[in-house]
Amino acid sequence: MSEQSTADVRSELGKPFERLLEILGEVDDLGKAGAVLQWDHQTYMPKGGAAGRAQILGTLARLSHQRFTSDEVGELLAQLAPALSKLDPSGFEASLIRVTQREYGRFKKLPTRLVEEQARVSSEAQAVWVEARQNQDFPRFQPYLEKLFALAREAAEHLGYQEDPYDALLDLYEPGLRTSEVASLFATLKARLVPLVNAITEAKQHRSPGGQAGKAGEAGEAGGDSLLRQHFDEAGQWELGLRALRAMGFDFERGRQDRSAHPFTITLAPGDIRITTRIVPDDFTSALFSTMHEGGHALYEQGIPPELARTPLGSAASLGVHESQSRLWENVVGRSRHFWQYFLPQAQEIFPAQLGGVTVDRIYRAVNRVERSFIRTEADEVTYNLHVILRFELELAVLHGELPVSDLPAAWDDKMQQYLGIRPPNVSLGVLQDIHWSQGSIGYFPTYTLGNVLSVQFWQQALSEEPGITDAIARGELHVLKDWLNRRVHVHGAKFEPRDLVQRVTGRPLDPQPYLNYIETKYRELYGLGS
Amino acid sequence: MSEQSTADVRSELGKPFERLLEILGEVDDLGKAGAVLQWDHQTYMPKGGAAGRAQILGTLARLSHQRFTSDEVGELLAQLAPALSKLDPSGFEASLIRVTQREYGRFKKLPTRLVEEQARVSSEAQAVWVEARQNQDFPRFQPYLEKLFALAREAAEHLGYQEDPYDALLDLYEPGLRTSEVASLFATLKARLVPLVNAITEAKQHRSPGGQAGKAGEAGEAGGDSLLRQHFDEAGQWELGLRALRAMGFDFERGRQDRSAHPFTITLAPGDIRITTRIVPDDFTSALFSTMHEGGHALYEQGIPPELARTPLGSAASLGVHESQSRLWENVVGRSRHFWQYFLPQAQEIFPAQLGGVTVDRIYRAVNRVERSFIRTEADEVTYNLHVILRFELELAVLHGELPVSDLPAAWDDKMQQYLGIRPPNVSLGVLQDIHWSQGSIGYFPTYTLGNVLSVQFWQQALSEEPGITDAIARGELHVLKDWLNRRVHVHGAKFEPRDLVQRVTGRPLDPQPYLNYIETKYRELYGLGS
Repeated sequence: MSEQSTADVRSELGKPFERLLEILGEVDDLGKAGAVLQWDHQTYMPKGGAAGRAQILGTLARLSHQRFTSDEVGELLAQLAPALSKLDPSGFEASLIRVTQREYGRFKKLPTRLVEEQARVSSEAQAVWVEARQNQDFPRFQPYLEKLFALAREAAEHLGYQEDPYDALLDLYEPGLRTSEVASLFATLKARLVPLVNAITEAKQHRSPGGQAGKAGEAGEAGGDSLLRQHFDEAGQWELGLRALRAMGFDFERGRQDRSAHPFTITLAPGDIRITTRIVPDDFTSALFSTMHEGGHALYEQGIPPELARTPLGSAASLGVHESQSRLWENVVGRSRHFWQYFLPQAQEIFPAQLGGVTVDRIYRAVNRVERSFIRTEADEVTYNLHVILRFELELAVLHGELPVSDLPAAWDDKMQQYLGIRPPNVSLGVLQDIHWSQGSIGYFPTYTLGNVLSVQFWQQALSEEPGITDAIARGELHVLKDWLNRRVHVHGAKFEPRDLVQRVTGRPLDPQPYLNYIETKYRELYGLGS
Repeated sequence: MSEQSTADVRSELGKPFERLLEILGEVDDLGKAGAVLQWDHQTYMPKGGAAGRAQILGTLARLSHQRFTSDEVGELLAQLAPALSKLDPSGFEASLIRVTQREYGRFKKLPTRLVEEQARVSSEAQAVWVEARQNQDFPRFQPYLEKLFALAREAAEHLGYQEDPYDALLDLYEPGLRTSEVASLFATLKARLVPLVNAITEAKQHRSPGGQAGKAGEAGEAGGDSLLRQHFDEAGQWELGLRALRAMGFDFERGRQDRSAHPFTITLAPGDIRITTRIVPDDFTSALFSTMHEGGHALYEQGIPPELARTPLGSAASLGVHESQSRLWENVVGRSRHFWQYFLPQAQEIFPAQLGGVTVDRIYRAVNRVERSFIRTEADEVTYNLHVILRFELELAVLHGELPVSDLPAAWDDKMQQYLGIRPPNVSLGVLQDIHWSQGSIGYFPTYTLGNVLSVQFWQQALSEEPGITDAIARGELHVLKDWLNRRVHVHGAKFEPRDLVQRVTGRPLDPQPYLNYIETKYRELYGLGS
C-alpha cells in the first residue's frame, strides 16, 4: 500500500466521498440536536415539556434514519467499495467507508417507523420512569416497559442474528460481541467473584480486615465507612467534584457539569461534552465517584480528534470501551491509595470538620468497603458485576419471552437474594433504579462489566509503558494517565471494532485475568485474606 | 356559511388537509428542536460548543425550510384553496390554510442555501457578539454584522417589496406592516415625546416633581431612585421575581426561568415555555421588570390553545403583539401605583433593611424616574421609544447602503447625542448592547415601539370591559387581567394578522393616541407639569 497524503486520497475518491461526508454530517447534526434535547430533558426541562419533547425526538430520529439509510448513501458506498482495498485500513478514509458500510447495513434493516417509535416511546417512558421511581410505582411504568421490550424484540428480528435475538441488540452497543461470549465471560467472573464475596463477608463477620483491631460502631470492620456517613454540604461536594475534574484534565471550556436524577455523559458537539452528577448529602464519595466516572467518559469524548467530527468515526469504539474509561478513573484511580495521597488533603481543605485527622489508609479502606447493597451505581468493585449479571439474565429472560414484564420486580428481588443475599425493600431500590430500560437500552448492561474488565487491561498496559503513572497520580499529576489514554485509545475514535482496538492497544485479546487478579490482590489485602 | 363541527370540516377537507398537518408538524418539530438549541446556547452552553452548534442550527433550518417549501406543500395548498371560501374564516381550518399560504408564499421565495447560511452565521455571530461586548471590541464583531446585513439585503431582494427593501424584512416580524407606516407612527410619537422629555428634564433641573421639596443627594428630584441603588442579594432578587411570576399566573409546570446575558422568552413545546433574566446587584427592579416583561411574553405563549400546537397558528400573531403583552405587564402593570400597593409589602418582606419604611408613593416615583440613559432595556417609558427610533433609522441607513457597518458605532453615538443628549462611553453601552443584530434580526426593533402603543390600546379595552382590573391588581389578583388577555388575545394564536387582531379585540385600528395620552397624563402628574 502506497503512502499517500489525505489530500491525494481524497481527490482520488472524488465527489462520492465528499458527498458521503456531507450526508453523514447532516445525520450527525440531527443526532447532536437530539442530544441537546436529551440533555435538557434530564436536567432542566419542566414537566409540561415531556409530551412535546417526545414528538420532536421522534421526528429527529426519523429524519436522521431516513437520511442515513437513503438509497443515495447505498449508491455512494457501492461506488466507494472498490477503492477500499487500495487504502490504508487504519486511515480516515478506509475507516469511514468501512464503519459506514457496517452501520448502513445495520440501520437499513430497521424500518424508519420503528426507529421513530422507539425514540418517541422512550422519551415518554423516561418521564414516566422518573415519576414511577419517585412513587415506588412499578405498574405505572409497566406498560411502557412492555412496549419498549416489544420494540426491542421487533428490532432484533429486523436486524437478524445467528444464535440469539439478544445478539442483535448487543451488537448495537458492542459491535461484534455475541451473547454466548458474554455468558462465558460472566461465568468466569462468577466463578472467582462469588467465592471472594463470601470470603469477605465471612471475614467481616469474624474479624477485622488486615488483622487490625476493629473500631467501635463499625461492625468490627476496621476502616469501615462511618467516616463517610456524615453531613457534607452540597456546595462543598460540588467544589470537590470540580477539583477532581480539573485534576483529571476535563476541559471546562469544552464542557460542563450539571445535576440530574441519573448521572450521564453526553456529547453535544466536539467542543461541548457534558456530564451530570447527583449529590448525596451524607456521603461525599457518592457524587465524587460519579463525577470521576462521568469525567472518565468525558475525557474519552474530549480526546477524540476534531477531524473525526460529524462522521460515524467521531465517537467511541463501543460502550464497553467507553465504560473502561469511566471505571478506570472511578475505581482503578479513584479508589487507589495513590489517588488519596493526593486528594485527601483536597477533601480535608473543603471538609475540615468531617475529615480532619483522617489518614490515607483510613479513607482508602472506607472507599473500598465491600458491602452487599441495592444500588448498582453505588456498589463496590467486588459486588458490582453481580448487579450487572442479574440485569443481563433478566433482560435475556424477558426478551426470550420466558419472563413477563409484570413479573420483573419479583424476579429482580429473587435474584438479589440469590446473588447478594439481600432483598430490596421497594421497587425504587430494586427494578426501577436504572434509567436504561426507560430509554429502550436493552442489551446495554453487559457493557458495564466489559468496561470493568477492559479498564484493568488498559491500566496495566499503561503501567507497562509508563511505570511512573502511579507516582504521578500521588502527586496529583493525573494528566500523565490522561495523555496516555488520549494517545493510545481516544485518538482512534470509532475507527476500529472493540476487538481490534483492544488488540492494537494491549497486544492481546480481551482477557478477564488481569481484572480478576487486580480485584483479588486488592481485596485480599484489604480484608486480610490468605491468597 | 353553514355551522359545521370541526370533525365534519376535517372529513370534507380530506387527506390533503391531514397530510398538510403532518408536514407542518414536522416543520414545527424542527423549529422547536432549534429553539432548545438556542435556549441552551444562551444559558448553559460552554464556549467550545459554539462552532458545532452553529452547524447544527444551519442543518435544522435547511431541513425545515426544504420541507416547508417542498412542492408537496404547494400542491396540497392548491388542492385546499377552493375550499377556503366555504369555510368559517375565523375557524382553525381556514386560518391554517390562509396562514400557511402566506408563509409558504414568503419562504418559497428564499433559497434554502440562504436560510441555512443565515442560521449558521447568526449562531456564530452570537458567540462573537458576547465576546465583543465583554471586551468592548466592535471590530471583532464588524465582519459578522456586515455579513448579516448582506444576508438580510439578499433576503429582502428575494422576498420582494413595493416601496422599500426594509418592508420585506419588517413583514417577517409584523405581517402587513410597511416601512412608511412605521416612519409615520414614529413621527407622531417623536412630535409629542421629545417635548415631554425636554419638559421633564427642565423640571428636574429647576424643581422637584409634584411640587414637593427635593431630598438631598437626589438631584432635586423627590422620589429619585437612590432607594433602588442599594445592594440587593441575588437569592432575594430571584425569589422576588418568582413571586411576581406566580402572581401573574405563570405556570411553572409548563415553564421555567434561567439566567442569560440578554433576557428572552422561548417556546420549546406547548407545555414548555422558558424565560430568562439577568440580575443587577444594585437595582432589584432591573431583574424584576425584566422578569415581568418576559413573563408577559410567556403568558401569551402559555395562553395559546394546545389545539393550535405543531401548526403555524400555534404562535403569536406578530412580534409587535407579543411585545404588547410584555410591555403591558412590565410597564402598565409593573410601574403602576396599584401594583405596588400589592407588591411593595412582598419586596419589603424579602429586603426589609433596604425597603422597610418606604411608601407606595416613594417607590412608584422611583420606578418611574425619567432619565436619559444608555441601555434600551433599562430605559424608562418616556425615553424608551427614542432608543428604538435610533435603531430603526440606523438599520434602515445600513440596509439602504447609506451607512457602512464600520461607521455604525459613531453614528450610534451621534444619534444618542441628538435624541437623548448623552454619548455612550464605550461600545458595550452603545452599539453592542443588543443581541438582535447578532441574531440576524434586522427589521425587528420597530416592533418594540409597536408593542408599547398596543399595550395601552389593549389595556384600555380591558378596563372598559372590566373596570375592576386595577383594584384587583392592588389586591394581588393579577389573574383577572391574565384571564382577560387569555380570552381576548392569546386564544387566537396566529390566526389573524395583527391589523385584524387589533380591530377584533379593540374595535379600532392601531392608534397611538391612547398610548400618548397615557404617557403624558402619567408623567405630567409625576413631574408636576401643567397639562
